[in-house]
Amino acid sequence: MYVIGERINGMFKDVRQAIQAKDKSIVQGLAKQQMGSGAHCLDVNVGPASDDPVSTIQWLVETIREVSDAPLAIDTTKAEVMAAGLKAAGPGSVVNSTTGQQAKLDALLPLAAEYDASVVALTIDEKGIPRDASGRVEIALRVVAAAMEHGISPDRIYVDGVIIPISADQMTPTHVLNTIAQCKMLSDPPPKTILGLSNVSQGAIYRELVNRTYMVMALAHGLDAAIMDPMDSDLMDAMITAELLLNRNVYCADFLKAYRASAG
Amino acid sequence: MYVIGERINGMFKDVRQAIQAKDKSIVQGLAKQQMGSGAHCLDVNVGPASDDPVSTIQWLVETIREVSDAPLAIDTTKAEVMAAGLKAAGPGSVVNSTTGQQAKLDALLPLAAEYDASVVALTIDEKGIPRDASGRVEIALRVVAAAMEHGISPDRIYVDGVIIPISADQMTPTHVLNTIAQCKMLSDPPPKTILGLSNVSQGAIYRELVNRTYMVMALAHGLDAAIMDPMDSDLMDAMITAELLLNRNVYCADFLKAYRASAG
Repeated sequence: MYVIGERINGMFKDVRQAIQAKDKSIVQGLAKQQMGSGAHCLDVNVGPASDDPVSTIQWLVETIREVSDAPLAIDTTKAEVMAAGLKAAGPGSVVNSTTGQQAKLDALLPLAAEYDASVVALTIDEKGIPRDASGRVEIALRVVAAAMEHGISPDRIYVDGVIIPISADQMTPTHVLNTIAQCKMLSDPPPKTILGLSNVSQGAIYRELVNRTYMVMALAHGLDAAIMDPMDSDLMDAMITAELLLNRNVYCADFLKAYRASAG
Repeated sequence: MYVIGERINGMFKDVRQAIQAKDKSIVQGLAKQQMGSGAHCLDVNVGPASDDPVSTIQWLVETIREVSDAPLAIDTTKAEVMAAGLKAAGPGSVVNSTTGQQAKLDALLPLAAEYDASVVALTIDEKGIPRDASGRVEIALRVVAAAMEHGISPDRIYVDGVIIPISADQMTPTHVLNTIAQCKMLSDPPPKTILGLSNVSQGAIYRELVNRTYMVMALAHGLDAAIMDPMDSDLMDAMITAELLLNRNVYCADFLKAYRASAG
C-alpha cells in the first residue's frame, strides 16, 4: 500500500508553530521520521490559519526538499496554492485533492497534467456526498473520464470515497468499502483508491484502534493508498500483516522486520 | 459475531492433564473465563490422545454443565463421540464438524437433525480441499442441499472455508474471504460462515496479530462466527471495533466497555 504521511499539516500544533516561527527543524524532523517509518510520500498542508498560503507552501516544500526527495502530496483546496506547491515539489507529486465538481476539475486537472502529478479525487459533487457506494462510483467515473480528456491515465487517479467519523454515521464505512471494491471494475486500468484514514476516528476515544481496524477492512477490499500516520507502529504492523494475508507481501518468519528493513 | 471459545481442547496441555487427572476445576475455570470474556458457545474437544473418547466427551460436557448452560460445539470427527456429546450437551449444540464427503454427511446430518443442532461444514470433499473459492462454494451448496433433505435449514449450517497456515500458503486467505462473501448468495436464507481462526497463524511468530488481522478482514466480508480464543482481549477489541464499523454494534463513546457490559 502506498503510505502518505499525514503529519506535515498546519492543523497539528507543532507544525503550526513551526510555520509561524519559520522553524525548519520540526518540519524536517517530521519528514525524516515519517519516511523512516515507512511512508512513501509526504502530505503537505499549510493548515487553516495561514494568511499567506502560497508562500507558506513554498517554504514547507523547500524545507522538506533540503532533507528528502520523497514525493509530496500538495494538500489544499486553493488552485494557486496547488500550483505553487506542485512547482516547488517537482515530478511525482500528488494533487490532494479535487472533487467531482466541474469547477474543481477545470481548475486542478490542467495543473496535474502540467506537473505530471497524480490526483486524489474526493467523491463529492455539486450535490454533496452521495448516500451510498453507487453514487460515489458514479462521481469517480466522471472524474476518470475528465482526467482522460487531460491526458491523465485512470491509474493516476486516487478515488477517495470520503469517510466520515464513525461517531457521526455508522453506515458510511460500509459504503466506502463497497466504493473501494467497485472502483476496481470501473476502467482498465482501474483508478486507484485512497482513504483519509484518520477521519474515521474523529471524536472516538479509541482512535488508533478504529483507524487500524478500518484500514485492514479497506485493504481486504483492495485499498491502494492511505493518508495516515506512519509513526503509529501498531497501524503499520496491521498494514504489513493485512498485506501478507492478501499475498501483497511475501511471507517470511519475521515479516514485520523484513518489511521495515526493505522499506528503510 | 458468534464467538465459539476454543480452549477446552485436549490439544492444549492444561486440558489434556485435566482429562487425565479428572480435574474438573481446570475445565470449569476455562468455561467460566471464556463465557466471561464474551464467548457465546464453547468448543469441546477430547484431543488426539484420549483412549476412551466417548466417556471423555461425556465427562467434559457434564463437567461444563455443572457451571454453565452455554451452547456447546462438539468437536470430533467420530460419529459415536458426536452422538455422546450431543446427547449430554442438550439443545442448541453445534456439530463440529462435517465435511462435504458423502459418508460424513450420511453419518452426521441425522445426528444434527435428531439433536436439533447447528452444523459446521468444512469445504472438503472426496477430492480434498479445493484450490479456490468456487470449489469451496460448490461443496457448501452440496452440504446445504443435503442438510435440507434432513430438515436442517441453511441458516443452521456454518460453512468453514478451511483456512490453512499463512506460513504454508499465501493464497488461501483470499480464497476463504471470497468463499465467505459468496456464501451469502448461495440460498435464502443463506448458510452462515465460520472460521477456525487460529489455524491461519500456526507456525507464525506474531500469532495474535495474524489472527486478529485476518478476523477483521473476514468480518468485512460477512463472517458470522469464529472458533477462537475469547480471552485474547486484543482480538475481542478488534472484533468489537470491526462490528462497530460494519454497523453490527451500535456506536457509543466507550463502545468496548459497553459491548462487554451487555455481553457479560
